[in-house]
Amino acid sequence: MKTAEIITTGSELVQGDVVNTNATYLAEELTWLGLIILHHTTVPDELAAISSAVERALERADLVVITGGIGPTRDDVTRNAVATATGRTLIRDETALAQIKETFRCRQADMPSSNIRQAMMPVGSIVITNRIGTAPGFSLRHNNREIICMPGVPIEMKWMFRDWVRPHLRAEIQSTIARLHRKLHVFGIHEAAIGEKIGHMMTPESKPSVGTMVNEGTITLRIAAEAEDKTRAGKALDDAETRIRRLLGDAVYGTGDDTLEGVVAALLKKHKKTIAVAESCTGGLVGNYLTDVPGASGYLLEDMVTYTYRSKSRLTGLPESEIDKKGAVNARTAKMMAKSIREKAGADLGLSITGAAGPTSRHPKERVGLVYCAIATRDGVKSKKFQFHGTRKWIKLMAAKSALNMLRLKLLAL
Amino acid sequence: MKTAEIITTGSELVQGDVVNTNATYLAEELTWLGLIILHHTTVPDELAAISSAVERALERADLVVITGGIGPTRDDVTRNAVATATGRTLIRDETALAQIKETFRCRQADMPSSNIRQAMMPVGSIVITNRIGTAPGFSLRHNNREIICMPGVPIEMKWMFRDWVRPHLRAEIQSTIARLHRKLHVFGIHEAAIGEKIGHMMTPESKPSVGTMVNEGTITLRIAAEAEDKTRAGKALDDAETRIRRLLGDAVYGTGDDTLEGVVAALLKKHKKTIAVAESCTGGLVGNYLTDVPGASGYLLEDMVTYTYRSKSRLTGLPESEIDKKGAVNARTAKMMAKSIREKAGADLGLSITGAAGPTSRHPKERVGLVYCAIATRDGVKSKKFQFHGTRKWIKLMAAKSALNMLRLKLLAL
Repeated sequence: MKTAEIITTGSELVQGDVVNTNATYLAEELTWLGLIILHHTTVPDELAAISSAVERALERADLVVITGGIGPTRDDVTRNAVATATGRTLIRDETALAQIKETFRCRQADMPSSNIRQAMMPVGSIVITNRIGTAPGFSLRHNNREIICMPGVPIEMKWMFRDWVRPHLRAEIQSTIARLHRKLHVFGIHEAAIGEKIGHMMTPESKPSVGTMVNEGTITLRIAAEAEDKTRAGKALDDAETRIRRLLGDAVYGTGDDTLEGVVAALLKKHKKTIAVAESCTGGLVGNYLTDVPGASGYLLEDMVTYTYRSKSRLTGLPESEIDKKGAVNARTAKMMAKSIREKAGADLGLSITGAAGPTSRHPKERVGLVYCAIATRDGVKSKKFQFHGTRKWIKLMAAKSALNMLRLKLLAL
Repeated sequence: MKTAEIITTGSELVQGDVVNTNATYLAEELTWLGLIILHHTTVPDELAAISSAVERALERADLVVITGGIGPTRDDVTRNAVATATGRTLIRDETALAQIKETFRCRQADMPSSNIRQAMMPVGSIVITNRIGTAPGFSLRHNNREIICMPGVPIEMKWMFRDWVRPHLRAEIQSTIARLHRKLHVFGIHEAAIGEKIGHMMTPESKPSVGTMVNEGTITLRIAAEAEDKTRAGKALDDAETRIRRLLGDAVYGTGDDTLEGVVAALLKKHKKTIAVAESCTGGLVGNYLTDVPGASGYLLEDMVTYTYRSKSRLTGLPESEIDKKGAVNARTAKMMAKSIREKAGADLGLSITGAAGPTSRHPKERVGLVYCAIATRDGVKSKKFQFHGTRKWIKLMAAKSALNMLRLKLLAL
């Protein structure tokens, strides 16, 4: 198995209502696995369009991955299209039906009869379990090719890919060249500054190759190495990682599937520290990140979103009239918030964020995007000023991640 | 001109390094212009791949829009591929060359000789000016079809589309049919249940057509109507919307760009109500949603994430020992949280969420995914039980959206 094509179905994609992130996700994953992607095709939820796209893809590629159109409604015709393209009939698959029934049983709901459609599979298919939704996927071998069909809902597709498709393909692809890759995640440094520091490792000729991807304010460096065997490829990756870490220092916060919040959580656990948070402009986003990590109740004692001057005054003891006069986006307020929440919750660390997320600012001194974060410990409190640029959501995101990153650096220094 | 296809070129797209936003942008714009999009295809920067994609598209569609591969480097082969697909040669276009030279003159830089490549156009092309970058686009008529080729850099492509392509196509299309579409957003009802209620409006033959899209727990119905003129198409949409609203009731929370949090915010403003939130398993996500809407400080007084038993005890006055014994995921705790935060913050409404987000539960009675939400008003407090299934993040997301939806229904009933 060497080449692959991706077919994404759905009128919402064809008409541009939704950005096609499934195609990007699958392309990246399949490329990592060592497959050469020949084409992506996006077609509407129409039997003829899907089946002819599948036929065309089967002429060219060893693997055809399809997403979408396997729901319970009548416009879900991908199962039929694969059957048509491969000259097969649909039969009811009892394994699939049992999975669908089980999903409804867990939800303590009756299965509508329309969901039986989802158990109809092209003859010869292997059912792929859907852990989240009702639509089972399937894999079908046809003339020495393979078709893999998954749901269009991104979260369901990703789980299915990780659970079944990735391990399955890894076993199928037996490449003689070892290709390995590694991701290094970076925060708190601009892309251009990264280019200045490690640009010499990022030329088209560089081996291993190093590329950057930007995603929600964090930058990921993707290092890829090829060698005769895994040991040599692994060593090339190790060397490149060492060089990059030397040049970028503690701006590198993790590798692989690491997240900023996951790294912070691990450091809190490692140092056995508890934390309390007082948020303003981020509105709960820092708490949301921290609680995305399982076991957060072990270190996060409390998070208070003080969204009004009155609420800030109650937390910090600063008179409301003073906040009204001086505004709430300044080092003093940030420090008082961090100190107060730490004391109130009885935590080792207090973290605070106060800023102007826009689109308009409440106080003449508070330019949109101006944010102060502070960290309080037993030994004192320190604040940091940031100026972000962008939409309200972007400013919230950058403020929350910058606060987490400040916390990370503090914990690293313990 | 009725049908169109979109071809996006670039190895970075095929390999999934970059999300293909050009395809989405063009699809939406072309759909608005009244064209029916048949396919999107994404191919690598290879002559054979691009030219065969162009040939295939010319067989099917009246208009073929291509982006990417018209830069100055050797891997920019789209011009050659279009020439190959249409059986033409490339000639140097003096208009194009003058534009490229002018761009460099403005930048006060010398034009590298490699940029002359960008002035080579298939015979018969009309040059489209690039206001931002060096690569001119082109339009080419071939056998009663039209090919339009633009740069892959999104901002250059968008300027070119707005400057030349959109007005050009508007003149070309002169459609005798008006096409309109509308989105209705739904929450709190399963896709299959929607199918049971309005499935008869979702058959392939239904006019207007109705399709469903699922995105982060909410379901969007897309209604599309065709008629001789806009008035009639609009009326068909209105009729379909009325029928759907009658069948789905207040599960329909909005249209177009509406979000659940935006609708809740508008209702809070309309009724001049303030709110305070006490969150547990959602960890701040409800506050994050509410503060995504500009002006949230007008109604959100405070949000407290009580993530530990102790913190819940302090808020509610329930003894910690009792919570420890009975767990925190029950109607009583939810009600006490809603009541207490309402009183503490002096808000009109108190909203609470307590649940087990997993992956493991802290108390034997608290199955992962079990969530209670409650709303307190001056007149009392009511709770609702939910059971979600999926990952930790999914359970948090569904719990937060369900709480917002509960709040929406409460505000609708005022």
